[in-house]
Amino acid sequence: MKRSNHDRLGRLIGVNNRLVIAGFNAAELIAIAGQSPCYIYDKAALTERVETLRKQLPEAIKLHYAIKANPMPALVQHMAGLVDGLDVASHGELKVALASSIKASDISFAGPAKQVGELTAAVVSGVVINVESALELARLVDIAQQTGRRPQVALRVNPDFELKSAGMKMGGGAKPFGIDVEQLEAMLSDWPIELEFRGFHIFCGSQNLKPEALIEAHDNTFELAARLAAFSPCAPTHINIGGGFGIPYFPGEQALDIAPVMDNLRRLLANLPSSLQGCEFIMELGRYLVGEAGVYLCTVTDIKVSRGQSFAMTDGGLHHHLSNSGNFGQVIRKNYPVVATNCLESDQLEAVEVVGPLCTPLDIVGAKVMLPQLNVGDTIAVLQSGAYGATASPQRFLGHPEVEELLI
Amino acid sequence: MKRSNHDRLGRLIGVNNRLVIAGFNAAELIAIAGQSPCYIYDKAALTERVETLRKQLPEAIKLHYAIKANPMPALVQHMAGLVDGLDVASHGELKVALASSIKASDISFAGPAKQVGELTAAVVSGVVINVESALELARLVDIAQQTGRRPQVALRVNPDFELKSAGMKMGGGAKPFGIDVEQLEAMLSDWPIELEFRGFHIFCGSQNLKPEALIEAHDNTFELAARLAAFSPCAPTHINIGGGFGIPYFPGEQALDIAPVMDNLRRLLANLPSSLQGCEFIMELGRYLVGEAGVYLCTVTDIKVSRGQSFAMTDGGLHHHLSNSGNFGQVIRKNYPVVATNCLESDQLEAVEVVGPLCTPLDIVGAKVMLPQLNVGDTIAVLQSGAYGATASPQRFLGHPEVEELLI
Repeated sequence: MKRSNHDRLGRLIGVNNRLVIAGFNAAELIAIAGQSPCYIYDKAALTERVETLRKQLPEAIKLHYAIKANPMPALVQHMAGLVDGLDVASHGELKVALASSIKASDISFAGPAKQVGELTAAVVSGVVINVESALELARLVDIAQQTGRRPQVALRVNPDFELKSAGMKMGGGAKPFGIDVEQLEAMLSDWPIELEFRGFHIFCGSQNLKPEALIEAHDNTFELAARLAAFSPCAPTHINIGGGFGIPYFPGEQALDIAPVMDNLRRLLANLPSSLQGCEFIMELGRYLVGEAGVYLCTVTDIKVSRGQSFAMTDGGLHHHLSNSGNFGQVIRKNYPVVATNCLESDQLEAVEVVGPLCTPLDIVGAKVMLPQLNVGDTIAVLQSGAYGATASPQRFLGHPEVEELLI
Repeated sequence: MKRSNHDRLGRLIGVNNRLVIAGFNAAELIAIAGQSPCYIYDKAALTERVETLRKQLPEAIKLHYAIKANPMPALVQHMAGLVDGLDVASHGELKVALASSIKASDISFAGPAKQVGELTAAVVSGVVINVESALELARLVDIAQQTGRRPQVALRVNPDFELKSAGMKMGGGAKPFGIDVEQLEAMLSDWPIELEFRGFHIFCGSQNLKPEALIEAHDNTFELAARLAAFSPCAPTHINIGGGFGIPYFPGEQALDIAPVMDNLRRLLANLPSSLQGCEFIMELGRYLVGEAGVYLCTVTDIKVSRGQSFAMTDGGLHHHLSNSGNFGQVIRKNYPVVATNCLESDQLEAVEVVGPLCTPLDIVGAKVMLPQLNVGDTIAVLQSGAYGATASPQRFLGHPEVEELLI
């Protein structure tokens, strides 16, 4: 009986049991990218993901892409053709977003410690600024006076609830993100005339695989938005309800079932309080849109056995894919799905330690992965690698070549 | 009574209770670097560190700098004037080393998955290659035949003992680094005539603060070197005994007392077996030489209070200094020493959460640090930041500006 290396190959299985993306096998993808190691992002998979989501997402909800998940300019351009807006987290990301086909008024800028230069760029270019502190609001008033522009301002809210089961909690309790709900009434009742009030950004956490946790967070978010709308200087034009949809990385994790989440959103929209009638709702997703559309490819450069343990040495590692190495915020390291691209399924698997070229025991590609027998020259793929890869890794660590990225 | 923020200020305390490096205060250092955030590396501190070490290091032991700890070219150049050789971990680092004043024969190249291109560069330039596998040895024979050059080869040994108390273990057990001792006799007895045999590289682990652990490792290393010399094709010209000396980062850690380690080395050298007489011994240090000579400076951009907790928001964070954020291989996050540069010692301290500008809860500069009251515009310094900083961090994460580095 053939055994599948894991259950997330899906559309990647091509002829002869090989990994195929956009009609190309791994050797061909590396030839096009120009080198191994490389990230390959699958245009068709990105499009399919958004289309599948759109079929279930209530029409009244706008879909934004949070480009922090993958800011490769070509990928952002591709996503811009699929979504209704972009969210940026820095001046650098703002410039990538402005270069896309999305208009400035559909771009929003969030970030906990924005500086005057970044805020000025945002005001002048006309994007929506999610303000995170009283000082930021005061700075925007100054910038309005200096530039003669009217800043488009939403308030990022640190809610009085948490997103349960989130990979990273970003709301509730004492947080550097946003403004505590308790401080908002005073801020809203004394709204500066120089600033255009647009609405609220209420986001609690990321990488969630539990529908019930997201449903609870959405219930709380809509309830909080209604409370806040009552204090607002004018009716909010939009509420950004965040995202937080996770993707499965590790053994035992199941893909998020979005159907009940969407049903609940439909129910919430059908029962809007009058203060939120006519308001636009925005869902902002990063990892969920792009994470499964990318793979990281690297090549076996040496095979060795040390005291009974097989090691496959590769040209890729933590300098390109830090989160896969288990060293980016993880408490316990688990393997991402790792496959041999020329033999996806096999009934002869053996445990191999796949490691990179760095002189550190942290440089793990896959620990004791079950793979068919490997040879020097074989290509290894790390799946689920479309988000938080190249830009979230210390590429100059130990002076090895940087990674290539290919959107195809 | 005045309270010191921590006990590692040492030479950094200048007039008026301010941090001073090379005669400049923080504002001046930032002006010279050209921006906040920046790393400042102190030339005088680097020189002093090497000189202090040299006073205790047996004269017969050569001192090498492992440039992976900090590969800034100007810093490597400075170190080249102080040490006897350089160690590199990649083709990129090899080029930095070759550009320095150290001659090629005093440069060695270690790394667990060296590729043909890297090996060719090393052979042609004449540096010593620390071979880590049988395939690497075979590749060197090919390269020798193709280039007409004679590769200078040492063998990196995966010893049959461990370095106890090491921050990272890199020898003993099943490892991707080096060649198991058990495999060496066969390899040495069948030495290829194309390759010049130079010696052994025996390194067990890094960041060790316990003299007794280093002493035990040195005892084992010398004993192993003597065993291996008996099988060697000719007398080894050098033995690289590694480094592994740690520096104190966290509360409660004490600086390594090197005196007993050096006494033990003197004893070992005085009792060398005949097979190691005339052999050169090399100590290779990275972090220990440069780690305490660097600080990371960043600036407070906002102060906010969320539900009773004070947050100082800065322009610096994990994108520049990943290990300080606690997200690079650490299981439990602890604070590096963090100080307010304009008030190093104070009797009025308060707990503040110092965080960076990234939209992630991982972006911590210092968690609940005891600091004097901060204001927007104040400069924060993270001490002990001369090693594994800029190049070991995901600088492009979220598109914020990269860090500047200044050697002064």
